[in-house]
Amino acid sequence: MLNEKTVPEDFLASGREELDSLLLFTAEIDKMTGVSRRTLLLDRSRRENDAEHSWHIAVMSMIFADFASGQVDTDRAVMMCLVHDLVEIYAGDTFAYDRAGYADKAAREAAAADRVFSMLPGGRGGELRALWKEFDAMETPDAKYAACMDRLQPFLHNTLTGGHTWVEGHVSRSQVEARMAVIKDFMPGIWPWIEANIDRGVELGWIRNELDDGEEKRK
Amino acid sequence: MLNEKTVPEDFLASGREELDSLLLFTAEIDKMTGVSRRTLLLDRSRRENDAEHSWHIAVMSMIFADFASGQVDTDRAVMMCLVHDLVEIYAGDTFAYDRAGYADKAAREAAAADRVFSMLPGGRGGELRALWKEFDAMETPDAKYAACMDRLQPFLHNTLTGGHTWVEGHVSRSQVEARMAVIKDFMPGIWPWIEANIDRGVELGWIRNELDDGEEKRK
Repeated sequence: MLNEKTVPEDFLASGREELDSLLLFTAEIDKMTGVSRRTLLLDRSRRENDAEHSWHIAVMSMIFADFASGQVDTDRAVMMCLVHDLVEIYAGDTFAYDRAGYADKAAREAAAADRVFSMLPGGRGGELRALWKEFDAMETPDAKYAACMDRLQPFLHNTLTGGHTWVEGHVSRSQVEARMAVIKDFMPGIWPWIEANIDRGVELGWIRNELDDGEEKRK
Repeated sequence: MLNEKTVPEDFLASGREELDSLLLFTAEIDKMTGVSRRTLLLDRSRRENDAEHSWHIAVMSMIFADFASGQVDTDRAVMMCLVHDLVEIYAGDTFAYDRAGYADKAAREAAAADRVFSMLPGGRGGELRALWKEFDAMETPDAKYAACMDRLQPFLHNTLTGGHTWVEGHVSRSQVEARMAVIKDFMPGIWPWIEANIDRGVELGWIRNELDDGEEKRK
Protein backbone atom coordinates (compact mmCIF):
# COMPACT_ATOMS: atom_id res chain seq x y z
CA MET A 1 0.00 0.00 0.00
CA LEU A 2 2.72 2.45 0.91
CA ASN A 3 3.99 2.67 -2.62
CA GLU A 4 0.68 3.81 -4.08
CA LYS A 5 0.69 7.15 -5.80
CA THR A 6 -2.09 8.32 -3.51
CA VAL A 7 0.07 8.10 -0.40
CA PRO A 8 1.49 11.38 0.82
CA GLU A 9 5.24 11.25 1.13
CA ASP A 10 5.21 12.28 4.76
CA PHE A 11 2.79 9.57 5.85
CA LEU A 12 3.84 7.73 8.99
CA ALA A 13 2.90 4.06 8.71
CA SER A 14 1.49 2.22 11.70
CA GLY A 15 3.25 -1.04 10.88
CA ARG A 16 -0.13 -2.80 10.86
CA GLU A 17 -1.26 -3.44 7.33
CA GLU A 18 -5.01 -3.32 8.04
CA LEU A 19 -4.77 -0.03 9.92
CA ASP A 20 -2.50 1.50 7.27
CA SER A 21 -5.07 0.63 4.60
CA LEU A 22 -7.90 2.21 6.58
CA LEU A 23 -5.90 5.39 7.24
CA LEU A 24 -4.82 5.69 3.62
CA PHE A 25 -8.38 5.15 2.38
CA THR A 26 -9.54 7.82 4.83
CA ALA A 27 -6.94 10.24 3.47
CA GLU A 28 -7.77 9.35 -0.13
CA ILE A 29 -11.52 9.98 0.13
CA ASP A 30 -10.88 13.52 1.37
CA LYS A 31 -10.56 14.19 -2.38
CA MET A 32 -14.39 14.13 -2.50
CA THR A 33 -14.22 17.70 -1.19
CA GLY A 34 -12.55 18.61 -4.50
CA VAL A 35 -15.13 17.02 -6.79
CA SER A 36 -17.37 19.90 -7.78
CA ARG A 37 -21.01 19.39 -8.75
CA ARG A 38 -23.19 21.70 -10.85
CA THR A 39 -25.55 22.46 -7.97
CA LEU A 40 -25.07 25.72 -6.04
CA LEU A 41 -25.00 25.85 -2.25
CA LEU A 42 -28.10 27.62 -0.98
CA ASP A 43 -26.10 30.73 -0.05
CA ARG A 44 -25.02 30.75 -3.74
CA SER A 45 -21.39 31.32 -2.69
CA ARG A 46 -20.09 28.41 -4.81
CA ARG A 47 -20.97 24.99 -6.20
CA GLU A 48 -21.35 22.20 -3.70
CA ASN A 49 -18.90 19.30 -3.71
CA ASP A 50 -19.43 15.56 -3.48
CA ALA A 51 -18.62 15.34 0.24
CA GLU A 52 -21.21 18.01 1.10
CA HIS A 53 -23.82 16.50 -1.22
CA SER A 54 -23.28 12.99 0.17
CA TRP A 55 -23.65 14.22 3.74
CA HIS A 56 -26.76 16.19 2.86
CA ILE A 57 -28.64 13.29 1.25
CA ALA A 58 -27.50 10.87 3.98
CA VAL A 59 -29.19 13.08 6.60
CA MET A 60 -32.26 13.36 4.35
CA SER A 61 -32.42 9.56 4.22
CA MET A 62 -32.81 9.58 7.99
CA ILE A 63 -36.00 11.66 7.89
CA PHE A 64 -38.02 11.17 4.67
CA ALA A 65 -38.95 7.46 5.00
CA ASP A 66 -42.59 8.20 5.90
CA PHE A 67 -43.05 9.27 2.28
CA ALA A 68 -41.66 6.06 0.76
CA SER A 69 -44.26 3.78 -0.80
CA GLY A 70 -42.26 0.62 0.00
CA GLN A 71 -40.62 -0.70 3.16
CA VAL A 72 -37.20 0.93 3.47
CA ASP A 73 -34.20 0.09 5.66
CA THR A 74 -33.09 3.68 6.22
CA ASP A 75 -29.74 2.58 7.71
CA ARG A 76 -28.82 0.87 4.45
CA ALA A 77 -30.06 3.84 2.41
CA VAL A 78 -27.90 6.16 4.52
CA MET A 79 -24.81 4.01 3.83
CA MET A 80 -25.58 4.03 0.10
CA CYS A 81 -25.80 7.81 0.13
CA LEU A 82 -22.45 8.04 1.92
CA VAL A 83 -20.58 5.93 -0.67
CA HIS A 84 -22.62 6.47 -3.86
CA ASP A 85 -20.28 9.13 -5.29
CA LEU A 86 -16.87 7.77 -4.16
CA VAL A 87 -16.16 6.60 -7.71
CA GLU A 88 -16.26 10.26 -8.81
CA ILE A 89 -12.86 10.82 -7.14
CA TYR A 90 -11.45 9.25 -10.32
CA ALA A 91 -14.42 9.28 -12.74
CA GLY A 92 -15.49 12.87 -12.07
CA ASP A 93 -19.04 14.16 -11.65
CA THR A 94 -21.27 13.55 -14.67
CA PHE A 95 -23.92 16.28 -14.92
CA ALA A 96 -27.36 14.69 -14.62
CA TYR A 97 -28.49 16.22 -17.92
CA ASP A 98 -25.30 15.59 -19.91
CA ARG A 99 -26.15 12.95 -22.57
CA ALA A 100 -22.61 12.67 -23.96
CA GLY A 101 -21.14 12.25 -20.49
CA TYR A 102 -23.56 9.42 -19.76
CA ALA A 103 -22.38 7.41 -22.78
CA ASP A 104 -19.22 6.14 -21.08
CA LYS A 105 -20.24 6.83 -17.47
CA ALA A 106 -20.68 3.14 -16.56
CA ALA A 107 -17.26 2.08 -17.85
CA ARG A 108 -15.48 5.06 -16.23
CA GLU A 109 -17.17 4.43 -12.91
CA ALA A 110 -16.55 0.67 -12.86
CA ALA A 111 -12.82 1.29 -13.32
CA ALA A 112 -12.94 3.94 -10.60
CA ALA A 113 -14.75 1.52 -8.28
CA ASP A 114 -12.00 -1.07 -8.77
CA ARG A 115 -9.49 1.53 -7.75
CA VAL A 116 -11.15 3.10 -4.71
CA PHE A 117 -12.77 0.06 -3.11
CA SER A 118 -9.68 -2.14 -3.53
CA MET A 119 -7.86 0.17 -1.11
CA LEU A 120 -9.88 -1.32 1.75
CA PRO A 121 -8.73 -4.41 3.63
CA GLY A 122 -10.62 -7.67 4.15
CA GLY A 123 -14.24 -7.75 3.07
CA ARG A 124 -14.82 -4.02 3.66
CA GLY A 125 -14.13 -3.00 0.05
CA GLY A 126 -16.54 -5.61 -1.28
CA GLU A 127 -19.27 -4.47 1.13
CA LEU A 128 -18.96 -0.82 0.13
CA ARG A 129 -18.74 -1.70 -3.54
CA ALA A 130 -21.93 -3.79 -3.24
CA LEU A 131 -23.75 -0.80 -1.70
CA TRP A 132 -22.57 1.40 -4.57
CA LYS A 133 -23.69 -1.15 -7.19
CA GLU A 134 -27.07 -1.56 -5.53
CA PHE A 135 -27.53 2.21 -5.47
CA ASP A 136 -26.53 2.48 -9.10
CA ALA A 137 -28.92 -0.27 -10.26
CA MET A 138 -31.85 1.50 -8.53
CA GLU A 139 -33.89 -1.70 -8.28
CA THR A 140 -34.28 -2.44 -4.55
CA PRO A 141 -36.53 -0.30 -2.32
CA ASP A 142 -33.49 0.95 -0.36
CA ALA A 143 -31.74 1.99 -3.58
CA LYS A 144 -34.86 3.67 -4.95
CA TYR A 145 -35.28 5.60 -1.73
CA ALA A 146 -31.62 6.70 -1.76
CA ALA A 147 -32.00 7.68 -5.43
CA CYS A 148 -35.02 9.81 -4.52
CA MET A 149 -32.88 11.70 -1.98
CA ASP A 150 -30.12 12.07 -4.60
CA ARG A 151 -32.63 13.76 -6.93
CA LEU A 152 -34.74 15.66 -4.41
CA GLN A 153 -31.76 17.53 -2.91
CA PRO A 154 -30.49 19.18 -6.14
CA PHE A 155 -34.12 19.80 -7.18
CA LEU A 156 -34.69 21.68 -3.91
CA HIS A 157 -31.45 23.60 -4.44
CA ASN A 158 -32.55 24.55 -7.95
CA THR A 159 -35.91 25.81 -6.73
CA LEU A 160 -34.05 28.02 -4.21
CA THR A 161 -31.22 29.27 -6.46
CA GLY A 162 -33.07 30.62 -9.49
CA GLY A 163 -33.06 27.24 -11.26
CA HIS A 164 -29.29 27.46 -11.49
CA THR A 165 -28.33 24.13 -13.11
CA TRP A 166 -31.49 24.01 -15.25
CA VAL A 167 -30.73 27.43 -16.74
CA GLU A 168 -27.03 26.69 -17.17
CA GLY A 169 -27.75 23.36 -18.89
CA HIS A 170 -30.73 24.56 -21.02
CA VAL A 171 -32.64 21.71 -19.44
CA SER A 172 -36.14 20.88 -20.71
CA ARG A 173 -39.29 19.93 -18.83
CA SER A 174 -39.21 16.36 -20.12
CA GLN A 175 -35.59 15.98 -18.97
CA VAL A 176 -36.48 17.13 -15.46
CA GLU A 177 -39.54 14.88 -15.41
CA ALA A 178 -37.46 11.88 -16.50
CA ARG A 179 -34.84 12.62 -13.86
CA MET A 180 -37.51 12.90 -11.15
CA ALA A 181 -39.54 9.86 -12.30
CA VAL A 182 -38.22 7.69 -9.45
CA ILE A 183 -39.82 10.10 -6.98
CA LYS A 184 -43.17 9.93 -8.81
CA ASP A 185 -42.90 6.13 -8.65
CA PHE A 186 -41.48 5.55 -5.17
CA MET A 187 -42.46 8.65 -3.18
CA PRO A 188 -45.73 9.74 -4.79
CA GLY A 189 -46.62 11.95 -1.81
CA ILE A 190 -43.78 14.27 -2.78
CA TRP A 191 -44.67 14.37 -6.48
CA PRO A 192 -47.31 17.15 -6.37
CA TRP A 193 -44.69 19.47 -4.85
CA ILE A 194 -42.17 18.45 -7.52
CA GLU A 195 -44.72 18.97 -10.29
CA ALA A 196 -45.77 22.38 -8.98
CA ASN A 197 -42.12 23.45 -8.89
CA ILE A 198 -41.50 22.18 -12.41
CA ASP A 199 -44.50 24.25 -13.55
CA ARG A 200 -43.09 27.23 -11.70
CA GLY A 201 -39.64 26.66 -13.23
CA VAL A 202 -41.15 26.68 -16.70
CA GLU A 203 -43.21 29.80 -15.95
CA LEU A 204 -40.12 31.63 -14.68
CA GLY A 205 -38.08 30.56 -17.72
CA TRP A 206 -35.71 28.39 -15.64
CA ILE A 207 -36.81 25.20 -17.40
CA ARG A 208 -37.18 25.02 -21.19
CA ASN A 209 -40.68 24.11 -22.35
CA GLU A 210 -40.59 21.83 -25.40
CA LEU A 211 -44.06 23.09 -26.42
CA ASP A 212 -42.61 26.59 -26.74
CA ASP A 213 -39.73 25.16 -28.82
CA GLY A 214 -42.33 23.72 -31.21
CA GLU A 215 -44.13 27.06 -31.44
CA GLU A 216 -40.83 28.85 -32.06
CA LYS A 217 -40.16 26.55 -34.99
CA ARG A 218 -43.65 27.05 -36.46
CA LYS A 219 -43.26 30.81 -36.40
CA MET B 1 -43.32 26.89 9.67
CA LEU B 2 -43.52 29.14 6.67
CA ASN B 3 -43.07 32.25 8.74
CA GLU B 4 -39.77 31.20 10.25
CA LYS B 5 -36.85 33.48 9.57
CA THR B 6 -34.95 30.59 8.07
CA VAL B 7 -37.39 30.18 5.21
CA PRO B 8 -36.31 31.66 1.91
CA GLU B 9 -38.86 34.12 0.57
CA ASP B 10 -39.26 32.29 -2.71
CA PHE B 11 -40.03 28.93 -1.15
CA LEU B 12 -42.99 27.16 -2.71
CA ALA B 13 -44.93 25.30 -0.02
CA SER B 14 -46.29 21.83 -0.68
CA GLY B 15 -49.48 22.39 1.30
CA ARG B 16 -48.63 19.36 3.45
CA GLU B 17 -47.26 20.42 6.79
CA GLU B 18 -45.05 17.35 7.37
CA LEU B 19 -43.43 17.60 3.93
CA ASP B 20 -42.93 21.35 4.27
CA SER B 21 -41.11 20.80 7.56
CA LEU B 22 -38.82 18.18 6.05
CA LEU B 23 -38.00 20.36 3.04
CA LEU B 24 -37.34 23.41 5.20
CA PHE B 25 -35.11 21.42 7.55
CA THR B 26 -33.24 20.10 4.50
CA ALA B 27 -32.71 23.65 3.25
CA GLU B 28 -31.70 24.87 6.70
CA ILE B 29 -29.00 22.27 7.31
CA ASP B 30 -27.25 23.27 4.07
CA LYS B 31 -25.80 25.98 6.34
CA MET B 32 -23.42 23.30 7.66
CA THR B 33 -21.38 23.95 4.51
CA GLY B 34 -20.74 27.45 5.88
CA VAL B 35 -19.54 26.39 9.35
CA SER B 36 -15.77 26.43 9.06
CA ARG B 37 -13.55 24.22 11.22
CA ARG B 38 -9.88 24.74 12.06
CA THR B 39 -8.75 21.61 10.22
CA LEU B 40 -7.32 21.99 6.70
CA LEU B 41 -8.47 19.83 3.80
CA LEU B 42 -5.66 17.50 2.77
CA ASP B 43 -4.98 19.51 -0.40
CA ARG B 44 -4.48 22.50 1.97
CA SER B 45 -6.69 24.67 -0.26
CA ARG B 46 -8.89 25.81 2.62
CA ARG B 47 -10.36 24.77 5.98
CA GLU B 48 -12.90 21.97 5.91
CA ASN B 49 -16.49 22.68 6.88
CA ASP B 50 -18.91 20.80 9.12
CA ALA B 51 -20.75 19.08 6.24
CA GLU B 52 -17.49 17.69 4.83
CA HIS B 53 -16.20 16.65 8.25
CA SER B 54 -19.49 14.94 9.15
CA TRP B 55 -19.50 12.99 5.89
CA HIS B 56 -15.88 12.00 6.36
CA ILE B 57 -16.27 10.58 9.86
CA ALA B 58 -19.56 8.88 8.93
CA VAL B 59 -17.75 6.91 6.21
CA MET B 60 -14.92 6.16 8.65
CA SER B 61 -17.50 4.75 11.07
CA MET B 62 -18.43 2.21 8.40
CA ILE B 63 -14.91 0.75 8.23
CA PHE B 64 -12.98 1.06 11.54
CA ALA B 65 -15.15 -1.14 13.79
CA ASP B 66 -12.62 -4.03 13.83
CA PHE B 67 -10.45 -1.80 16.01
CA ALA B 68 -13.15 -1.06 18.60
CA SER B 69 -12.66 -2.82 21.93
CA GLY B 70 -16.41 -3.02 22.62
CA GLN B 71 -19.38 -4.21 20.57
CA VAL B 72 -20.45 -1.36 18.28
CA ASP B 73 -23.61 -0.83 16.25
CA THR B 74 -21.93 0.94 13.33
CA ASP B 75 -25.27 2.04 11.83
CA ARG B 76 -26.03 4.03 14.98
CA ALA B 77 -22.51 5.44 15.09
CA VAL B 78 -22.85 6.57 11.47
CA MET B 79 -26.10 8.40 12.30
CA MET B 80 -24.44 10.08 15.29
CA CYS B 81 -21.62 11.29 13.07
CA LEU B 82 -24.10 12.69 10.58
CA VAL B 83 -25.96 14.81 13.15
CA HIS B 84 -23.31 15.46 15.82
CA ASP B 85 -22.43 18.94 14.55
CA LEU B 86 -25.87 20.21 13.47
CA VAL B 87 -26.04 22.40 16.57
CA GLU B 88 -23.04 24.33 15.23
CA ILE B 89 -25.27 25.95 12.59
CA TYR B 90 -26.28 28.30 15.44
CA ALA B 91 -23.66 27.64 18.13
CA GLY B 92 -20.62 27.77 15.82
CA ASP B 93 -17.62 25.46 15.86
CA THR B 94 -15.69 25.42 19.14
CA PHE B 95 -12.01 24.67 18.53
CA ALA B 96 -11.08 21.44 20.32
CA TYR B 97 -8.25 23.16 22.20
CA ASP B 98 -10.09 26.40 23.04
CA ARG B 99 -10.61 26.41 26.85
CA ALA B 100 -12.58 29.67 26.92
CA GLY B 101 -14.88 28.48 24.15
CA TYR B 102 -15.62 25.29 26.06
CA ALA B 103 -16.81 27.20 29.13
CA ASP B 104 -20.24 28.02 27.66
CA LYS B 105 -20.27 25.38 24.90
CA ALA B 106 -22.91 23.20 26.57
CA ALA B 107 -25.40 26.03 27.07
CA ARG B 108 -24.90 27.43 23.56
CA GLU B 109 -25.33 24.01 22.00
CA ALA B 110 -28.41 23.04 24.03
CA ALA B 111 -30.16 26.21 22.84
CA ALA B 112 -29.05 25.47 19.27
CA ALA B 113 -30.37 21.91 19.57
CA ASP B 114 -33.79 23.22 20.64
CA ARG B 115 -33.83 25.37 17.54
CA VAL B 116 -32.61 22.93 14.87
CA PHE B 117 -34.28 19.71 16.01
CA SER B 118 -37.64 21.37 16.68
CA MET B 119 -37.90 22.06 12.95
CA LEU B 120 -38.60 18.37 12.34
CA PRO B 121 -42.14 16.92 12.43
CA GLY B 122 -43.42 14.06 14.58
CA GLY B 123 -40.89 12.11 16.58
CA ARG B 124 -38.03 12.71 14.10
CA GLY B 125 -36.62 15.72 15.92
CA GLY B 126 -36.56 13.86 19.22
CA GLU B 127 -34.78 10.89 17.63
CA LEU B 128 -32.06 13.02 16.09
CA ARG B 129 -31.67 15.04 19.26
CA ALA B 130 -31.26 11.84 21.27
CA LEU B 131 -28.47 10.71 18.92
CA TRP B 132 -26.73 14.06 19.35
CA LYS B 133 -27.04 13.90 23.15
CA GLU B 134 -25.75 10.33 23.25
CA PHE B 135 -22.77 11.34 21.10
CA ASP B 136 -22.08 14.33 23.28
CA ALA B 137 -22.19 12.32 26.54
CA MET B 138 -19.62 9.83 25.12
CA GLU B 139 -20.73 7.07 27.49
CA THR B 140 -22.17 4.29 25.31
CA PRO B 141 -19.94 2.12 23.09
CA ASP B 142 -21.55 3.59 19.94
CA ALA B 143 -20.90 7.14 21.14
CA LYS B 144 -17.32 6.34 22.14
CA TYR B 145 -16.69 4.82 18.72
CA ALA B 146 -18.18 7.86 16.94
CA ALA B 147 -16.09 10.13 19.19
CA CYS B 148 -12.96 8.20 18.19
CA MET B 149 -13.74 8.90 14.52
CA ASP B 150 -14.39 12.57 15.36
CA ARG B 151 -10.89 12.77 16.87
CA LEU B 152 -9.00 10.45 14.53
CA GLN B 153 -9.97 12.37 11.37
CA PRO B 154 -8.59 15.80 12.37
CA PHE B 155 -5.54 14.05 13.91
CA LEU B 156 -4.87 12.38 10.56
CA HIS B 157 -5.36 15.72 8.79
CA ASN B 158 -2.89 17.37 11.16
CA THR B 159 -0.27 14.69 10.54
CA LEU B 160 -0.66 15.32 6.80
CA THR B 161 -0.82 19.14 6.81
CA GLY B 162 2.24 20.10 8.81
CA GLY B 163 0.39 19.95 12.13
CA HIS B 164 -1.75 22.87 11.01
CA THR B 165 -4.20 23.30 13.89
CA TRP B 166 -1.64 22.29 16.53
CA VAL B 167 0.78 24.96 15.34
CA GLU B 168 -1.94 27.59 14.95
CA GLY B 169 -3.33 26.87 18.43
CA HIS B 170 0.07 26.46 20.21
CA VAL B 171 -1.27 23.11 21.36
CA SER B 172 0.73 21.08 23.88
CA ARG B 173 1.44 17.36 24.04
CA SER B 174 -0.77 16.89 27.10
CA GLN B 175 -3.65 18.66 25.34
CA VAL B 176 -3.39 16.35 22.34
CA GLU B 177 -3.10 13.31 24.61
CA ALA B 178 -6.19 14.37 26.55
CA ARG B 179 -8.15 14.93 23.34
CA MET B 180 -7.12 11.50 22.02
CA ALA B 181 -7.66 9.64 25.31
CA VAL B 182 -10.94 8.11 24.11
CA ILE B 183 -8.98 6.34 21.33
CA LYS B 184 -6.45 4.98 23.83
CA ASP B 185 -9.36 3.71 25.91
CA PHE B 186 -11.75 2.42 23.25
CA MET B 187 -9.55 1.64 20.22
CA PRO B 188 -6.21 0.66 21.80
CA GLY B 189 -5.02 -0.94 18.54
CA ILE B 190 -4.84 2.52 16.99
CA TRP B 191 -3.04 4.11 19.95
CA PRO B 192 0.57 3.18 19.03
CA TRP B 193 0.10 4.97 15.69
CA ILE B 194 -1.36 8.01 17.49
CA GLU B 195 1.45 8.04 20.03
CA ALA B 196 4.16 7.75 17.34
CA ASN B 197 2.61 10.69 15.49
CA ILE B 198 2.42 12.77 18.66
CA ASP B 199 6.14 12.07 19.21
CA ARG B 200 6.80 13.06 15.61
CA GLY B 201 4.70 16.21 15.99
CA VAL B 202 6.73 17.21 19.04
CA GLU B 203 10.03 16.45 17.26
CA LEU B 204 9.01 18.54 14.28
CA GLY B 205 7.91 21.42 16.51
CA TRP B 206 4.23 21.10 15.54
CA ILE B 207 3.20 20.20 19.08
CA ARG B 208 4.48 22.11 22.09
CA ASN B 209 6.39 19.99 24.58
CA GLU B 210 5.67 21.02 28.17
CA LEU B 211 9.04 19.62 29.26
CA ASP B 212 10.76 22.09 26.94
CA ASP B 213 8.60 24.87 28.43
CA GLY B 214 9.96 23.91 31.83
CA GLU B 215 13.53 23.96 30.58
CA GLU B 216 12.92 27.32 28.90
CA LYS B 217 11.81 28.72 32.25
CA ARG B 218 14.81 27.29 34.08
CA LYS B 219 17.23 28.91 31.65
